[in-house]
Amino acid sequence: MSVKPLIDEPQSPASEVPMADLIEGMARGARYASRQMARSTPASRTEALYDIADAIEASSGEIVASNEADLAAADANEITGAMRNRLELGEAGVEKLASAIREVAAQPDPLGGVEDEIVRPNGLRVGRMRIPLGVVAMIYESRPNVTADAAVLCLKAGNAVVLRGGSEAIHSNRAIAAAIRTGLEASELPVDAVQLIPVVDRAAIDVLLVQEAWIDLVIPRGGEGLIRAVTEKSRIPVLQHYKGVCHLFIDASAPVERAVEIVTNAKVQRPGVCNSLETLLVHADAVPRVLRPISARLIAEGVELRGCPLVRAALSDLPIHTASAEDWPAEYLDLTLAIRIVPDLEDALDHIATHGSSHTEAIVTDDEDSAATFVGAVQSSTVLVNASTRFADGGELGLGAEIGISTSKLHAFGPMGANELTTRKFVVFGDGHTRQ
Amino acid sequence: MSVKPLIDEPQSPASEVPMADLIEGMARGARYASRQMARSTPASRTEALYDIADAIEASSGEIVASNEADLAAADANEITGAMRNRLELGEAGVEKLASAIREVAAQPDPLGGVEDEIVRPNGLRVGRMRIPLGVVAMIYESRPNVTADAAVLCLKAGNAVVLRGGSEAIHSNRAIAAAIRTGLEASELPVDAVQLIPVVDRAAIDVLLVQEAWIDLVIPRGGEGLIRAVTEKSRIPVLQHYKGVCHLFIDASAPVERAVEIVTNAKVQRPGVCNSLETLLVHADAVPRVLRPISARLIAEGVELRGCPLVRAALSDLPIHTASAEDWPAEYLDLTLAIRIVPDLEDALDHIATHGSSHTEAIVTDDEDSAATFVGAVQSSTVLVNASTRFADGGELGLGAEIGISTSKLHAFGPMGANELTTRKFVVFGDGHTRQ
Repeated sequence: MSVKPLIDEPQSPASEVPMADLIEGMARGARYASRQMARSTPASRTEALYDIADAIEASSGEIVASNEADLAAADANEITGAMRNRLELGEAGVEKLASAIREVAAQPDPLGGVEDEIVRPNGLRVGRMRIPLGVVAMIYESRPNVTADAAVLCLKAGNAVVLRGGSEAIHSNRAIAAAIRTGLEASELPVDAVQLIPVVDRAAIDVLLVQEAWIDLVIPRGGEGLIRAVTEKSRIPVLQHYKGVCHLFIDASAPVERAVEIVTNAKVQRPGVCNSLETLLVHADAVPRVLRPISARLIAEGVELRGCPLVRAALSDLPIHTASAEDWPAEYLDLTLAIRIVPDLEDALDHIATHGSSHTEAIVTDDEDSAATFVGAVQSSTVLVNASTRFADGGELGLGAEIGISTSKLHAFGPMGANELTTRKFVVFGDGHTRQ
Repeated sequence: MSVKPLIDEPQSPASEVPMADLIEGMARGARYASRQMARSTPASRTEALYDIADAIEASSGEIVASNEADLAAADANEITGAMRNRLELGEAGVEKLASAIREVAAQPDPLGGVEDEIVRPNGLRVGRMRIPLGVVAMIYESRPNVTADAAVLCLKAGNAVVLRGGSEAIHSNRAIAAAIRTGLEASELPVDAVQLIPVVDRAAIDVLLVQEAWIDLVIPRGGEGLIRAVTEKSRIPVLQHYKGVCHLFIDASAPVERAVEIVTNAKVQRPGVCNSLETLLVHADAVPRVLRPISARLIAEGVELRGCPLVRAALSDLPIHTASAEDWPAEYLDLTLAIRIVPDLEDALDHIATHGSSHTEAIVTDDEDSAATFVGAVQSSTVLVNASTRFADGGELGLGAEIGISTSKLHAFGPMGANELTTRKFVVFGDGHTRQ
């Protein structure tokens, strides 16, 4: 692989170049574009996002047709309903893409300005300035709307992005990326700030993951297998989005109706996503009041319950399966729930620390001390009091759009918006200062 | 490697266990200790640091004697002066360790408290709470004082740490770590919050780097070879501390005397460290005024100059070597300086973006527009105006002690203090909120 000097203007990749050269050329082109992005003004970034939204709408016909090609391939491969639903855009889906982009455009700009300024005893003024990360590589599966969401959040934060979507959405992704680049052409931003890897060859990912000279961050978004493979192979820092084994603890003081509503919402409102509830922990003192109404409601909603021996003994008349050791760390992503009775809050915290995935945990309580202890002790990315785990989402927490939910504590922990795609540098002003 | 349940009390490693089991046991013990650390109070952390400082002083005799054993081995291996100096502690060195620990103890506590609180339209209160990272693995070379600095900063931020120092300081490191653990025994914090890998076997590092189940972050600190090897092998996120190819740009308007003093300080005050100057860029319009006085002063200070053809032509009477392509990305860490004349500020920015290491860059100027352009455009971790690059240091920038200087943009960029060893979780308060 030949490494040309960075300041060469990158060439458009031609289809006959070897794949490794193609990917390396794209990564290098992204680095070049990122330098222009870092110099771009807030106004030019905002206008570019509106240009992109317009271009997406103008390309609606091509995008829908390309999406139908992916759907036809999915049907030929007998793809299941849930996956097919995630793939499908339609005209309404394209309109949603455009309006989501305009929402991001309207959000405050995350860059520039000097924060946290201090003056040192020697008179040196020291502050922090928020800057882009540089080049982001996004590796994802299934949903074609990630192509637009990720591209737009990266641009908002002044980054360039190299996108690598799944083969099942390749036609949709290509059409969306082409529309984004058409929008960029109308703007002051560099077109190569958004590039989609056009080949479906899986080896492209391996080549991408060694471009540490040009890429600053890799974000994998998809199944655990994808994330683990990317983490093991990458020489570039990876922001991991592992599974969500979310817990809800019913404290001794929990009001019955609130407990029933929150548990039901957390489990059944959308069971296939990472912030849905997987394990319910019930304080022994609350069991006589809450266990039966919660369990009856969940069973009525079609949830399969897997209980510890205490749960089964307390509700011997209800159809409750025996939870095995595999149930405690399980992410069902389905209408299944593990239930365990714990002696007290400390045991609930132990259970969460042992079996949790650092994603999202909630407590239902009327006791402020329990709430404070729970919030202080749980080391997960989102901790909720008297609210459904389903609120662990960038939009719901006020970040605007989200590029993913990080379960590793480095850099960003929890839902990530545009701000999480930036970093801060030190800016220092002296008047001839030298060090003694 | 058997993985026991997390809630088992960890055993003290016995010397006859296989190395992989020893390291895994230490990592697991660190995770257990980190859970207690996360629950510790600010007062208990502060008191523990004072206990540790006392214990270090009380162990001064053992530490100095152990350090002398390392020095004797260094002499037997004919270690060079600079490396030997970095290894040497003496009684005064031990006293410095203790006083540095007391300084960290006196700094504000970085944890707890809810920041950036907002109320969502549905009434949900959303804030961010600063929490420890969990378990940090620190892999370092040479200086034994890193053992104390790293341990204490990790404790300050509520983390547990596994330390792996170099074989050349193994006796010193063992004595310092033993004193730290004696201090922890007198405190309310868990003793296993600080563990030193007692073996010098290099395979220990490989085993450490796959403990992703128990360790949250790896910080390598040392030569580029160490950092690159750790980055390639680690399954755990790594905070990289690569080289510092620091630039200083003399703008057209730079006052001569200020330019001479800052350049000289940046190059000669301590040439062996990462924030010393490696390449000087001079605006063509400033050449007639500044190039000769700067070059003459540097030569008088014993600096070898390597200039571009324009520099050599302008100062044909001075002993200036020809800079080759290898000089622009070079980190000399010595009394050598590359000098290049550039047509203007934009070319200086191009040179820095192409050859820089994202560490530290400075401008000397009297022009506010040039300063603003330079500060805005340079994407390095520290950018200085009219001040020496030598100020790129945690202590000088007001962070207190520093655990290293990150040159990757993820999580922390630039000098890292206790605050950079934390993360933030979302804390959400509702009154029965369910998602629609």
